[in-house]
Amino acid sequence: MSHITSLAQTPEPPYYAVIFTSQRTDGDRGYSKMADRMVELAKTMPGYLGVESVRDSSGVGITVSYWKTEEDIRNWKQNAEHSRAQEAGKTTWYSEYALRIAKVERAYGK
Amino acid sequence: MSHITSLAQTPEPPYYAVIFTSQRTDGDRGYSKMADRMVELAKTMPGYLGVESVRDSSGVGITVSYWKTEEDIRNWKQNAEHSRAQEAGKTTWYSEYALRIAKVERAYGK
Repeated sequence: MSHITSLAQTPEPPYYAVIFTSQRTDGDRGYSKMADRMVELAKTMPGYLGVESVRDSSGVGITVSYWKTEEDIRNWKQNAEHSRAQEAGKTTWYSEYALRIAKVERAYGK
Repeated sequence: MSHITSLAQTPEPPYYAVIFTSQRTDGDRGYSKMADRMVELAKTMPGYLGVESVRDSSGVGITVSYWKTEEDIRNWKQNAEHSRAQEAGKTTWYSEYALRIAKVERAYGK
């Protein structure tokens, strides 16, 4: 049995999801490097359960990260390096974005 | 003020999200037509609030649909045409997928 590593392997619910939807501005301007770094950094944070991330050629992207508790999400949000990335996202990288914090109640799949 | 229509315009939380992550098999085999149809059909269902959907060139996709209540999600899951699409998804279109039902508790954005 092989598994596509793009799909997160999460435990039984309940747990939390951060749904981040965004529209990129034109040009890289340091974005790709930061995005890779944020994924690596998130993996080291307490309560991290996994991440799924897709962006298409029109610059629309959805990233869903999964966390054990809301406190873990707050802690990740407040990480200093992540805070700088969030600020650059607002000012430079995203023309529009939405961030939603949600409690995963049920999950199934193939 | 223009808005990118790829990002859903949802009301204040709480509401519900269906996070559907998938890996497509090779070849279209009727998938694109069905995917467009399901988005159009979902928009007509009670409690529909919006949808965001992205798939990249490697075939990994994330679709998040938003709903007023869990009952609205059950109703949509049981729609006859949607049920046939779900079955074809399991047997033909997706090599792997995960579906998560989550309650959106907080949301913000730009």
